[in-house]
Amino acid sequence: MEQENNVFNNNNTSNSSSTTNNNNKNKKKNPLDPEEFRNHGHKLIDFIADYYSNITNYPVRSQAQPGELRRLLPVQAPISPEPIDSILHDINSFILPGLTHWLSPFHFAYFPSSASTAAFLGDLLCSGLNVIPFTWLSSPSATELESIVMDWLAKALALPSSFLFSSGTGGGVLQGTTCEAILCTMLAAREKTLILTGHHRAFDLVVYSSDQAHSSFQKAAKIAGILPSNFRSLSTSSSTFFSFSPSLLRQTISEDLSSGLIPFFICATVGTTSSTAVDPIKELSLIAAEFNLWLHVDSAYAGSAAICPEFRHYFDGVDGASSLSLNAHKWLLTNLDCCCLWVKDQAALTSALSTDPEFLKNDASDSKDKNVVDYKDWQVALSRRFRAMKLWFVLRSHGISGIQSVIRGHVEMAMKFEGMVADDRRFEVVVPRTFAMVCFRLLAPEGWPEEVNELNRRLLEGLNKSGRVCMSHAVVGGVYVIRFAIGATLTEQHHVDLAWRMVRRHADDLLGNVAGEEEEEELKENGYYNCG
Amino acid sequence: MEQENNVFNNNNTSNSSSTTNNNNKNKKKNPLDPEEFRNHGHKLIDFIADYYSNITNYPVRSQAQPGELRRLLPVQAPISPEPIDSILHDINSFILPGLTHWLSPFHFAYFPSSASTAAFLGDLLCSGLNVIPFTWLSSPSATELESIVMDWLAKALALPSSFLFSSGTGGGVLQGTTCEAILCTMLAAREKTLILTGHHRAFDLVVYSSDQAHSSFQKAAKIAGILPSNFRSLSTSSSTFFSFSPSLLRQTISEDLSSGLIPFFICATVGTTSSTAVDPIKELSLIAAEFNLWLHVDSAYAGSAAICPEFRHYFDGVDGASSLSLNAHKWLLTNLDCCCLWVKDQAALTSALSTDPEFLKNDASDSKDKNVVDYKDWQVALSRRFRAMKLWFVLRSHGISGIQSVIRGHVEMAMKFEGMVADDRRFEVVVPRTFAMVCFRLLAPEGWPEEVNELNRRLLEGLNKSGRVCMSHAVVGGVYVIRFAIGATLTEQHHVDLAWRMVRRHADDLLGNVAGEEEEEELKENGYYNCG
Repeated sequence: MEQENNVFNNNNTSNSSSTTNNNNKNKKKNPLDPEEFRNHGHKLIDFIADYYSNITNYPVRSQAQPGELRRLLPVQAPISPEPIDSILHDINSFILPGLTHWLSPFHFAYFPSSASTAAFLGDLLCSGLNVIPFTWLSSPSATELESIVMDWLAKALALPSSFLFSSGTGGGVLQGTTCEAILCTMLAAREKTLILTGHHRAFDLVVYSSDQAHSSFQKAAKIAGILPSNFRSLSTSSSTFFSFSPSLLRQTISEDLSSGLIPFFICATVGTTSSTAVDPIKELSLIAAEFNLWLHVDSAYAGSAAICPEFRHYFDGVDGASSLSLNAHKWLLTNLDCCCLWVKDQAALTSALSTDPEFLKNDASDSKDKNVVDYKDWQVALSRRFRAMKLWFVLRSHGISGIQSVIRGHVEMAMKFEGMVADDRRFEVVVPRTFAMVCFRLLAPEGWPEEVNELNRRLLEGLNKSGRVCMSHAVVGGVYVIRFAIGATLTEQHHVDLAWRMVRRHADDLLGNVAGEEEEEELKENGYYNCG
Repeated sequence: MEQENNVFNNNNTSNSSSTTNNNNKNKKKNPLDPEEFRNHGHKLIDFIADYYSNITNYPVRSQAQPGELRRLLPVQAPISPEPIDSILHDINSFILPGLTHWLSPFHFAYFPSSASTAAFLGDLLCSGLNVIPFTWLSSPSATELESIVMDWLAKALALPSSFLFSSGTGGGVLQGTTCEAILCTMLAAREKTLILTGHHRAFDLVVYSSDQAHSSFQKAAKIAGILPSNFRSLSTSSSTFFSFSPSLLRQTISEDLSSGLIPFFICATVGTTSSTAVDPIKELSLIAAEFNLWLHVDSAYAGSAAICPEFRHYFDGVDGASSLSLNAHKWLLTNLDCCCLWVKDQAALTSALSTDPEFLKNDASDSKDKNVVDYKDWQVALSRRFRAMKLWFVLRSHGISGIQSVIRGHVEMAMKFEGMVADDRRFEVVVPRTFAMVCFRLLAPEGWPEEVNELNRRLLEGLNKSGRVCMSHAVVGGVYVIRFAIGATLTEQHHVDLAWRMVRRHADDLLGNVAGEEEEEELKENGYYNCG
């Protein structure tokens, strides 16, 4: 029986079938027949490559009406199989025109969806291999690659060594999204606290963030059963560029302690969604240490920028945090979904999230070998995809220098855009730019009858309805701002330039300025008119 | 400006660049350059097709040692970009040999990971388009396709119309995994109950399942803050094939009510993980109605079988359930991850899970149009993948008849395997087979010195260590059983036949039966020896 370990034949499934079973020839193809897979796979690759080539032909923000697709598609699934060409035809005719095209170089809304060929290839392998690394044993190299790649990335971001597996106590895991990452760390902190205080005190647990924290934090707290009345969303102001106030935090914690409540979790943000504000991690971490609270750093968007030494200072003090997360699918060239979470205390996480059902018991898990990580105990779900593959592809295909160059390119374009806004007296940059997102607005001319927030709302809606650019908005300190976020991979300087011309032209139209028409002529002469 | 809505040019990005910017020629390639994407994409498709052709060359269950990959890979990410061929070389050399190959036709462990070319193509499009349909507006046709496809599948499974969007109150959503689906429905039920009873009663909430429910249920309850002491895992017995006892449930609920507790959630299972037991949905739903509790039906594995009319009766009474989930990635030819969840009461779900941050506000969401579904409010996370694409591909490429035929094929193979086990007096089928999974064990010969559970544990470990087949185990009613689950897409009858020969041969070896060697000769003669 020893040979079994090493000797496997070279026949593929269809070869061995034909050798041993001649009547297989006429039977139905296996749904995973390798040659059909190959043919159809090539077809799809070409389909997507063509889509990228022609992506500017589509309105960026979908112009579909609610219910439009439902009216176009049959009311039930087909009984018989349909050929791939029919499906691709329908995708071209019905689906693509109804998408909002996040990969369009004219997509500047939300935080753009980072993507690259490298990540796509890794995602394709993840889907194709279709392994499920919930325990180490259920796919060892998939699990180990995740641990390795999380260490690689932590080093590339100059995170403290306490977040690495090599520390013996810390480590990283790939989640789907930030909400899951925050939820998991909050559960870890909840468990630690409840063990200290007794489960009957769950009712008294309090969490803290600034009022600029992402809504995912509030959602995670709600899911974890934190009472709405124990959710502290602390005020920020324009004078500190909407960053978390340590003094207000300290004061609020002290008040809660005096009331007999149990503070246990702080969420700080580096790069808030509304205005990319940066919370003072160092000072917050000192408060966390003083009161023995869990400090999570949500750097969903801006975390990737730490790969450039010139942005690393925004993370100073992170060695005092308990955990940190960032979305590689936001700004690290990685296709959705890929949220990187590091924790200092693996045991806190797994103590809150582990299950130990009989059907998954195995010697490797029982061995307590440090290399045997059962990632099912680091996340909400049991099953999980082999997400490490795409991050590994990105890190290797681009190298650290390549990723730095992409991030710097985005920041440079944003600087130029900021400059163009500042040079036009009709506009203002509302909050100083920190990364690759500019918050600006149109100023209401003297005597303008309309509220300035409404003017900007109309400006944005006009731009988005045009289908030629897509941006989104925020309200900071009562001010409605248009968020111009650069990060879609295909975006280059000429797209940004055109977007700014569009903004000016729409402003002209709104304000009744005839200069708009001259601008239009200029755009045409430059060959830009048609969204090229 | 009217033209903007309709006129988009046909130039692709690179064309327009070359027209307007001649100095672009020598610059660095965009990380999403369409032609590089095309070339590398084709290479990866061939790589995966070759993998499927040669998948039986690998040991099914990885034979890697803990830490093996870490010793092989560099300790940090490269500074400079590396070529794709180096990465593929390393995948071949280091990653593939260390995987447990879920798509191997000899993978019979856990519940196999369903996959098909059709789903892969949809997944590939999902990754390639990389849109984020968190709100309807953020990608309308992606959201609508999900609603449509969930209605399609609900009809194909003959689910009650109250689960469809057309009911006006129900509907379906794609989650990643069952744990998320159970968590979301539990949160919906928790919210409803706490509104009725006041948030200060959270401490008293009680959930119910049989002791055969998946560990995900316990994990979801823990996450949702249900006290461990309020988690009821009710005993089952072999006399009812390990199904949930309605009378025990009724009695327990009554006792809890008498104690002043608040019963609110029942999780029933159709097709349990250990033995594919089927809980009596009809009777459980009557109890749920009587006490006004939320009844969730977890049919992660067996739900897909409802597409065959002959299996639909296992779901009788589901019209009395509040929600139902199944994993299309388990048995509906869909690559990971794809969990289908339907609820009767959309509003209960969204009331528990909705957030309304300013930056996502839009006219469509405010319109209350029934076609405008903001799926962010149906799940834990904000961001989400375009999972509907792969399910749509599967339903169209195979049609309902094609999927039925695959499921029936698996069940037939399982029946044959069950027959082979029954025909060998040294073995027994421990629990009658219901779907495509057989629970069997080796009986200890008279006078055998070892405990029978230990004998089977050794038998299973020997089989898995051989690398030629992979199975897993469960313990039901104190009996250690080997689970032989058919469902890997490439599995055909000859793989099952060979697996059974392997089981017999390993049993021979264990029991010291020389017949094992004759069997080995027979295997060789049939060309089967080397895992063909």
